[in-house]
Amino acid sequence: MHTSLQGIIAYPITPFDEKKTVDIPLYQHLLERLITTGAHAVAPLGSTGVLPYLNDAEKEAITEATVQQVAGRVPILVGVSNLTTERTIQHAQFAERAGADAVMIIPMSYWKLTDDEIFHHYDAVASKLNIPIMAYNNPATGGVDMSPQLLKKLLEIPNVTMVKESTGDIQRMHYLRRELGEDVSFYNGSNPLALAAFAAGARGWCTAAHNLIPDLNLALYSAVCKRDYTLAERYFLAQFDLLKFIVAYGLPRTVKAGLEILGEQAGELRAPLRKLSTAETATLKKILLQTIDSAT
Amino acid sequence: MHTSLQGIIAYPITPFDEKKTVDIPLYQHLLERLITTGAHAVAPLGSTGVLPYLNDAEKEAITEATVQQVAGRVPILVGVSNLTTERTIQHAQFAERAGADAVMIIPMSYWKLTDDEIFHHYDAVASKLNIPIMAYNNPATGGVDMSPQLLKKLLEIPNVTMVKESTGDIQRMHYLRRELGEDVSFYNGSNPLALAAFAAGARGWCTAAHNLIPDLNLALYSAVCKRDYTLAERYFLAQFDLLKFIVAYGLPRTVKAGLEILGEQAGELRAPLRKLSTAETATLKKILLQTIDSAT
Amino acid sequence: MHTSLQGIIAYPITPFDEKKTVDIPLYQHLLERLITTGAHAVAPLGSTGVLPYLNDAEKEAITEATVQQVAGRVPILVGVSNLTTERTIQHAQFAERAGADAVMIIPMSYWKLTDDEIFHHYDAVASKLNIPIMAYNNPATGGVDMSPQLLKKLLEIPNVTMVKESTGDIQRMHYLRRELGEDVSFYNGSNPLALAAFAAGARGWCTAAHNLIPDLNLALYSAVCKRDYTLAERYFLAQFDLLKFIVAYGLPRTVKAGLEILGEQAGELRAPLRKLSTAETATLKKILLQTIDSAT
Amino acid sequence: MHTSLQGIIAYPITPFDEKKTVDIPLYQHLLERLITTGAHAVAPLGSTGVLPYLNDAEKEAITEATVQQVAGRVPILVGVSNLTTERTIQHAQFAERAGADAVMIIPMSYWKLTDDEIFHHYDAVASKLNIPIMAYNNPATGGVDMSPQLLKKLLEIPNVTMVKESTGDIQRMHYLRRELGEDVSFYNGSNPLALAAFAAGARGWCTAAHNLIPDLNLALYSAVCKRDYTLAERYFLAQFDLLKFIVAYGLPRTVKAGLEILGEQAGELRAPLRKLSTAETATLKKILLQTIDSAT
Repeated sequence: MHTSLQGIIAYPITPFDEKKTVDIPLYQHLLERLITTGAHAVAPLGSTGVLPYLNDAEKEAITEATVQQVAGRVPILVGVSNLTTERTIQHAQFAERAGADAVMIIPMSYWKLTDDEIFHHYDAVASKLNIPIMAYNNPATGGVDMSPQLLKKLLEIPNVTMVKESTGDIQRMHYLRRELGEDVSFYNGSNPLALAAFAAGARGWCTAAHNLIPDLNLALYSAVCKRDYTLAERYFLAQFDLLKFIVAYGLPRTVKAGLEILGEQAGELRAPLRKLSTAETATLKKILLQTIDSAT
Repeated sequence: MHTSLQGIIAYPITPFDEKKTVDIPLYQHLLERLITTGAHAVAPLGSTGVLPYLNDAEKEAITEATVQQVAGRVPILVGVSNLTTERTIQHAQFAERAGADAVMIIPMSYWKLTDDEIFHHYDAVASKLNIPIMAYNNPATGGVDMSPQLLKKLLEIPNVTMVKESTGDIQRMHYLRRELGEDVSFYNGSNPLALAAFAAGARGWCTAAHNLIPDLNLALYSAVCKRDYTLAERYFLAQFDLLKFIVAYGLPRTVKAGLEILGEQAGELRAPLRKLSTAETATLKKILLQTIDSAT
Repeated sequence: MHTSLQGIIAYPITPFDEKKTVDIPLYQHLLERLITTGAHAVAPLGSTGVLPYLNDAEKEAITEATVQQVAGRVPILVGVSNLTTERTIQHAQFAERAGADAVMIIPMSYWKLTDDEIFHHYDAVASKLNIPIMAYNNPATGGVDMSPQLLKKLLEIPNVTMVKESTGDIQRMHYLRRELGEDVSFYNGSNPLALAAFAAGARGWCTAAHNLIPDLNLALYSAVCKRDYTLAERYFLAQFDLLKFIVAYGLPRTVKAGLEILGEQAGELRAPLRKLSTAETATLKKILLQTIDSAT
Repeated sequence: MHTSLQGIIAYPITPFDEKKTVDIPLYQHLLERLITTGAHAVAPLGSTGVLPYLNDAEKEAITEATVQQVAGRVPILVGVSNLTTERTIQHAQFAERAGADAVMIIPMSYWKLTDDEIFHHYDAVASKLNIPIMAYNNPATGGVDMSPQLLKKLLEIPNVTMVKESTGDIQRMHYLRRELGEDVSFYNGSNPLALAAFAAGARGWCTAAHNLIPDLNLALYSAVCKRDYTLAERYFLAQFDLLKFIVAYGLPRTVKAGLEILGEQAGELRAPLRKLSTAETATLKKILLQTIDSAT
């Protein structure tokens, strides 16, 4: 099942309307763009989709709207992370019932969790679920850093079949590949590491960049599939500045600004998140247009 | 108003019963212990009280139970932090209506917030509130580090009258003292820094240690008030090992274990948090009993 | 013996003439200033004295010039650190023969040394020496961080009787005090930590600031000796900005610039070190003059 | 000229005899092994060759012995780093006169150098030299971290034509490639990054591993030259554990131990460096033999 997830896994933003409620029709429009521009899978309720800023009803509405809109065209990976184990189970079960193909879970921490606590957290969720789980490591947002050794151990839990690594440390990917063989499904979540991760054997690239530069994302992946690393490097360097910018300034804020630069509506952000400043938007515009030009 | 907060500000844990729901009677019993053992103020729904793991109804129940139990004997500082600005306002307003003396807010991050986003977050909450706000900096739990310069700026917001610093960097306290004068109310939240923070002018010590060693906490504060640093150092060093242990292994887990070592009921933890291991509990027991012995 | 080292231990710079050779007469003049302005001890060939940038002949000339100039008025602590054990022994033996009261050794690293390698390094030097050794921990310059546990172990070597801590982590000082009792001689080498370190029991303050603001340094120490921490804090905050500036911009460069602001000659720096920029010098001048004003 | 440096640039150790002096005949024997096993270039007096632990006469003897032994068969890159600018110039000029093809310079720091100081350091050396300079960035040993922006600026100095990056941050290599085009000569000095660095366009791999596993190093490079990344990954993963071990336990110590496991003499280390422990040696033996087996 999980092998269906590969290539460019695109992360939609969650747009809000002027009353500060989730704008489902606009969300579906932006999601449709991801599919029609060639994403191999979509991943709602990720960091880009500001999962932690949504209440339960909003998360469920996004999940259902995604399943309805995708209509089986590509796999759906739903973010269901929560601070407590009990509510993570509830969200995961909702996603499964709604029709998700897999769920993604980052061990959101407040108190730094021990390896033992993290293992039991995943194990408890997995035991209540029939679809695959992607264990997601991103200390920069989640606040806890899972070692490659812990990730390997999590993969012993039956449903935990995929790992997403966002630390930007290529050695961790080599470790996973070495320990787990070519069949392991690990994914890269660090945009500026996209080329190195594919060279290290990553099966897919989890990215919000597909909202802005789908052609370059796909061209990089296509070159990798052909093992043409000369071409892959060229496509990668062409998008490198944009990838660094969106990571440095935050995905929800930069994707919203980038969509507007491209003439799309992107709704409002939810406070405390705020729009990019005028100067930041100008910088993004320059980088984005140069990036798109370079690809043509 | 805010000057009423000083000395030992004690943080209760939030106990759960076997059905995994908040055990309000046990909470009130543990809160009463804090007051009768001499705490100068109490702070429900802090990190120790696992605020981020509670739902809205649970937070409100804790708030009301606190006001009822304290019955005006000591000031109450309620934690109302939330990832979104809107819900932080809701929690803060509830606390004010319920009878809290002040609220404590940490800018919980998922996406790293900019200084501008943090300022607007506090400003938006403050504009809806009539009681003082303590701005709380603790990158180890909240994930965002507010610079001393930003904290100084937050203090320009009318209701933001107090700062709690938990980075363990004494230079930041010197900076606040130097910039803001003797009238500034800053509090120390880093247990192993208690002596140095008082020497640097901290008005109070926000601590969960009062659940376990109230006499030593008070003795240290009393020596500081008399400016007897020889005595203060003796009391501090007597509790230093315990303070380091509870920080290293997490306040909710170690306070629960410590209470049980002292013969108190402390309820269950909420997953993913798990009990200390047997070996860790044995170490804590040894340190705790030695600490108490040394004080007598 | 070693207990004679206490209070303000002043670090002279090493001035160079226009031919880029060490200017011994100017060095002796600047050293004399430290003594006549009340330093309780002097420490040539420290980081401030650019020890690692000097050749053997220069180090020996500085050592001899110091002993001659001091003429028994205050204790002399000579820096003798070297990357290899053999040359550290040679420098230490030279210092002993020349008349130094004690030597200071930081384990300069290129390859990160193991605890075992560091212990044997100190042990080998100590076995060849009859004067006390101060073990100096400063990862920011030396590149290796000795844990408090390792420092405690080093103090088991007969001649190693003193520790200088420059990490700025007050908890390490509490640990040393707690483990080693009131008789342990530990010294603070982190300028912005001066007040907290004294409150934690430091016997002395190793500082280059005495070149610029001797009265304030001494006033702080005097208040500490009287256990008057209200006064100590006032004196400390008066010099806090200057202490932070000289640490941030490098002691040799800022002390040279500061001496010139005060009308003293200070010679040249040795490349690659370069003078402060004009703007940095202006900032230093403003801070230095304000600091001196505030003290009068 | 500098383009002659590519492929596997092998770093010899500097062996000492029982009197603790450099063993030149043994050095030449070990150097000869590097050449006969296929190294594309050799780099004496690197970190592996414990440059900072040698005196001037020893450095000069190693340099001359290298030129004599190599006899024009492969390019020679000599490490000439020193804390002061003046002595760096002296060492670089000696290397040029002796017949080195290029020199490698890391800005060894004691005081953290500013970008301006570093630029002037390289510029001063370059102005006195007629052979190319490789600017070497390795904060883990040298103590100063040169940003990619600074490295780019250094490449504007006429003689500075090569960069060696050892931070292990693949993004920095992408940056250099993007900014400087395909003609830039950058080299990888982080062993566990070997595959990713070649995929990012590195012209060569500076490694001590060639002392132990030359066939695997060369097989990886050969696969990269053919752009066969499937094969390259296989060869890389086969040596990954060894590369991680020698970095984690220090190159001079592990290469010496590894040579002895392979039946070679490797001389003594210079204190404070000490031999691997018996347990560490056993671990290395197991990894080394497995690595060699896997390659056959």
